[in-house]
Amino acid sequence: MKVLVLGGDGFCGWPTSLHLSELGHDVSIVDNLSRREIDLELEVESLTPIRPIGERIRVWKELSGRQIGFVHLDLAEEYDRFESLLRAERPDAVVHFGEQRAAPYSMRSTIAKRYTIDNNVRGTHNVLAGIVASGLDIQVVHLGTMGVYGYGWSGSAPIPEGYLTVKVPTPDGDIEREILHPSNPGSVYHLSKTLDQLLFAFYCANDQLRITDLHQGIVWGTQTPQTSLDERLINRFDYDGDYGTVLNRFLMQAAIGHPLTVHGTGGQTRAFIHIRDTVRCVQLALENAPDRGDKVMVLNQVTETYRVRDLAALLSKLTGVEVANLPNPRREAAENDLNVSRDQFLELGLDPTYLSEGLLEEVREIALRYKDRADTTKIIARSVWRKGMETSPDLMRS
Amino acid sequence: MKVLVLGGDGFCGWPTSLHLSELGHDVSIVDNLSRREIDLELEVESLTPIRPIGERIRVWKELSGRQIGFVHLDLAEEYDRFESLLRAERPDAVVHFGEQRAAPYSMRSTIAKRYTIDNNVRGTHNVLAGIVASGLDIQVVHLGTMGVYGYGWSGSAPIPEGYLTVKVPTPDGDIEREILHPSNPGSVYHLSKTLDQLLFAFYCANDQLRITDLHQGIVWGTQTPQTSLDERLINRFDYDGDYGTVLNRFLMQAAIGHPLTVHGTGGQTRAFIHIRDTVRCVQLALENAPDRGDKVMVLNQVTETYRVRDLAALLSKLTGVEVANLPNPRREAAENDLNVSRDQFLELGLDPTYLSEGLLEEVREIALRYKDRADTTKIIARSVWRKGMETSPDLMRS
Repeated sequence: MKVLVLGGDGFCGWPTSLHLSELGHDVSIVDNLSRREIDLELEVESLTPIRPIGERIRVWKELSGRQIGFVHLDLAEEYDRFESLLRAERPDAVVHFGEQRAAPYSMRSTIAKRYTIDNNVRGTHNVLAGIVASGLDIQVVHLGTMGVYGYGWSGSAPIPEGYLTVKVPTPDGDIEREILHPSNPGSVYHLSKTLDQLLFAFYCANDQLRITDLHQGIVWGTQTPQTSLDERLINRFDYDGDYGTVLNRFLMQAAIGHPLTVHGTGGQTRAFIHIRDTVRCVQLALENAPDRGDKVMVLNQVTETYRVRDLAALLSKLTGVEVANLPNPRREAAENDLNVSRDQFLELGLDPTYLSEGLLEEVREIALRYKDRADTTKIIARSVWRKGMETSPDLMRS
Repeated sequence: MKVLVLGGDGFCGWPTSLHLSELGHDVSIVDNLSRREIDLELEVESLTPIRPIGERIRVWKELSGRQIGFVHLDLAEEYDRFESLLRAERPDAVVHFGEQRAAPYSMRSTIAKRYTIDNNVRGTHNVLAGIVASGLDIQVVHLGTMGVYGYGWSGSAPIPEGYLTVKVPTPDGDIEREILHPSNPGSVYHLSKTLDQLLFAFYCANDQLRITDLHQGIVWGTQTPQTSLDERLINRFDYDGDYGTVLNRFLMQAAIGHPLTVHGTGGQTRAFIHIRDTVRCVQLALENAPDRGDKVMVLNQVTETYRVRDLAALLSKLTGVEVANLPNPRREAAENDLNVSRDQFLELGLDPTYLSEGLLEEVREIALRYKDRADTTKIIARSVWRKGMETSPDLMRS
């Protein structure tokens, strides 16, 4: 299968590209290297020493004998080149990771809000419009987010996989209707993915595109079997206040003896998935495409849920590092339960990596190994959801 | 009240600007003149001889003594200038008409699809982000569309004004939830307005912006008391296949003896409103703003509904012109009923202009008066919803 991986240089995109290449697919990465540019803007680096994309691809070729292509292209800004690429390459599928992916970054400034909406919506729309224009039957697998659903909306019912059947009152009694789960985004980033959903629904209905939207939880972990082969293939690991996701941030904090930063009460329950399962889920989505004329296939890409303060307590117990309760810069419920349907991936054969297995490996192989690369002035979250909200000072001297 | 009218040179924006100025408000128009540029692109002109915006404003000043400001600015492309304008002008409200507004145009080509999404979503998001950045409490009144709801979705229940209370099944029994009416857009244009709705919901929740979204039906008619004062103030009248709305197109066809072009069976029921009521509805929305912290106020801006073939039959009977049934270039139900809630505007005091009163005036004052300006090669709709769909040849020689 010929696959274009949009955003294939990023945290999920790179290990996915290697995994699909390992499986024998003909993979080309399309990326504008924006994630590396944002590192420059934020004056922070991946905890792990990632190499330039050209070197990554060269090393993979040396080790595996497999060639991955690379096209430096901005999906939002360079539509014509993208359409030409589709016509020239005639891929069977595009896997679309090519979006700004951090909630705190998306709330950081007016520029960041605008970049997130403009880049993500235009990029996704260009992908869809380009496929229609090409006239080719190209499957789309897109990385969505659990954050489109919001938290606590559906009472004791588990969050469904995309669709919800509700009863609508009419003069003739209630009628049943299947709806896309109402969106309740908690940041401009999550908002951008709720806009994507509407784009997918329209292009699926009007043009019969075959689209799978993966509503992923918070990814943790760093390495996959392929990225572990050589240090030059290592995946990125973000720990900073804007891009670091909660569990990886805790791991790194534990490794350097920094207090584990819990925002608010830590009563937020979130869904998690290991990066090794992310790449397998994308594979399963590619292998189980919807048919032409089907609605958008939505899968919840999560394997377990944890309350943030429970995660912090677990790490604290394992490592002896204390927990620090900081002000919450987000506008969100202080406490929420979370019950997520995730039957489809289990039925498709996913065998998850659970926290209980992978956590110590992660501390040892990544956080402890690269802890000297950490910049402790970048750990505290500084982006606030509304002007004037409080943030914490740095908790540790460099 | 100081009001910026975004898109104030367009079909709805110009008469609204004059109406608000007449009421004594301090009005400035912000427009990139894109509607006039699209006329150049499509090689078609308004049936009515509209004057340049500078002349329009000068004549209004001469006749009324009132000054309307004008800023030539692209909302999607010139964010920094827009934010500066908000800080300098400190308006009490912005009325946002600044979007590409035609469904057929939005389906015309890949370029037009991309322009519609990019322009409309970025423009609307820039308005919201700019207001938040300014720190000012600026009310937003936005022109939405009835097309966000789709047709026939809610059975015998009338389409509500924005929100719908549904029952969600849970293990503990059904729970009631109020949701934004699920969106069912019929074109990329309508899709862009469903994206706007999600932007509004987020900025309302996160930043407590005060936003009113007006889901308007198909506008007919041309003149308001202000635009009628002098021919140099005349409003635009679009009759072409891309921008002409169905009733105005019929009026013009009747005037020149062109067959009345009905697509498909004409069984589509649509909602209508006269341009005179549009401007009054915007006034009422400005005068009845939501409070900070309220959800987005959604009003259905329609006054009556008609089935397309019934409208054609009415015009045919009035004028003797025959009806032509052409292939339908849209992907839509051949027949639909339409029952729309519109209580809020009636409660706020709207006294509608009905078709039965205004139709003959419109034929006489506009269609017959300017019929020699019609280009009969521009009447037939040529934009199709999917490649390969059939369209009609021209029905009349120039």
